[in-house]
Amino acid sequence: MSDSSLLNELVDALKCLPSVGARTAQRMAFHLLEHDRESALKLADTLRLSMENIGHCKRCRTFTEDEICRVCKNENRQQDSLCIVENPSDVLALEQATAYRGYYFVLMGKLSPLDGIGPDELGLDLLDERLAEGQIKELILATNPTVEGEVTAHYISELAEKYNINTTRIAHGVPVGGELDYVDSGTLSHAFSGRRRY
Amino acid sequence: MSDSSLLNELVDALKCLPSVGARTAQRMAFHLLEHDRESALKLADTLRLSMENIGHCKRCRTFTEDEICRVCKNENRQQDSLCIVENPSDVLALEQATAYRGYYFVLMGKLSPLDGIGPDELGLDLLDERLAEGQIKELILATNPTVEGEVTAHYISELAEKYNINTTRIAHGVPVGGELDYVDSGTLSHAFSGRRRY
Repeated sequence: MSDSSLLNELVDALKCLPSVGARTAQRMAFHLLEHDRESALKLADTLRLSMENIGHCKRCRTFTEDEICRVCKNENRQQDSLCIVENPSDVLALEQATAYRGYYFVLMGKLSPLDGIGPDELGLDLLDERLAEGQIKELILATNPTVEGEVTAHYISELAEKYNINTTRIAHGVPVGGELDYVDSGTLSHAFSGRRRY
Repeated sequence: MSDSSLLNELVDALKCLPSVGARTAQRMAFHLLEHDRESALKLADTLRLSMENIGHCKRCRTFTEDEICRVCKNENRQQDSLCIVENPSDVLALEQATAYRGYYFVLMGKLSPLDGIGPDELGLDLLDERLAEGQIKELILATNPTVEGEVTAHYISELAEKYNINTTRIAHGVPVGGELDYVDSGTLSHAFSGRRRY
């Protein structure tokens, strides 16, 4: 494509980024070469450092370069609440949007037998141990409202039942600022059947 | 934002890529960590190699890791044609779209006195030397049809006049597949006044 084989390699390598195709990769390569070689070198270093050092928290499975992540280390959090999410980005979203200051457990996925993702892949044995400790009084199921997310939530709720732990599920309904006639029927039926005293 | 400072650094570093903001950078970081650490390490290596080794061709100023780029090295190309473009990506575009097989000269920009970009920054001294060699018989001005691109083309055409070199400008007009009433008036007036015998 170009007359520099190293440039070709760079464009190719940039395509590993999500939703970056050949054209965007080419634009990125030229941008970095022309305007921002220093940042590109910094990016190269940080990428290597991150890929080699960021692992999973031994307690909640989120991404961290430490043994135990900062949330799990923080003893000032509400000790008896555990919120189950699918991905590390969900933790960030909840921390930013809500006043919840308990602990998290990150599944790093959802039950999906067809893709070979069962309870072991989601670290549910680790979760089981955690619940067996007896400190958790409320388990909040914040998996996504998709079919797999619901199945995963259901599976975990049965796990919690063993230990008599109070389990809640985040509410599904009409998004704030949304309009009824633009909301899909599944959401609307959820919102209707889940109505609360005003 | 997150509870891993290295993860924060990675997200920050990814923002050096063009049109990548905080959210996209976060998505990229999680994607690489979850699914593609190997490609990310490869990207880190290639980035470093590229930034440290890709420079400019001594003859045409395009990006290359060699002293002279492959196009300039290739002696089977049409020796008497030189095409002036603004950016290395224009070379790729022309090579792919046209049958032109002469040489190129890459300005790496366009005349823009307000931004401090004058003839020296565009390597026009190098171009002058090249034209003085006497081998070039046709100079094709393929700068962009913007105000600065036109000014640059005009400036270079005067340079070529000194050496009595035949100078052409790529045609401006209605894009193929375009519709007249969707084309801006500047283009339409160009297309009309530049009409050719059918």
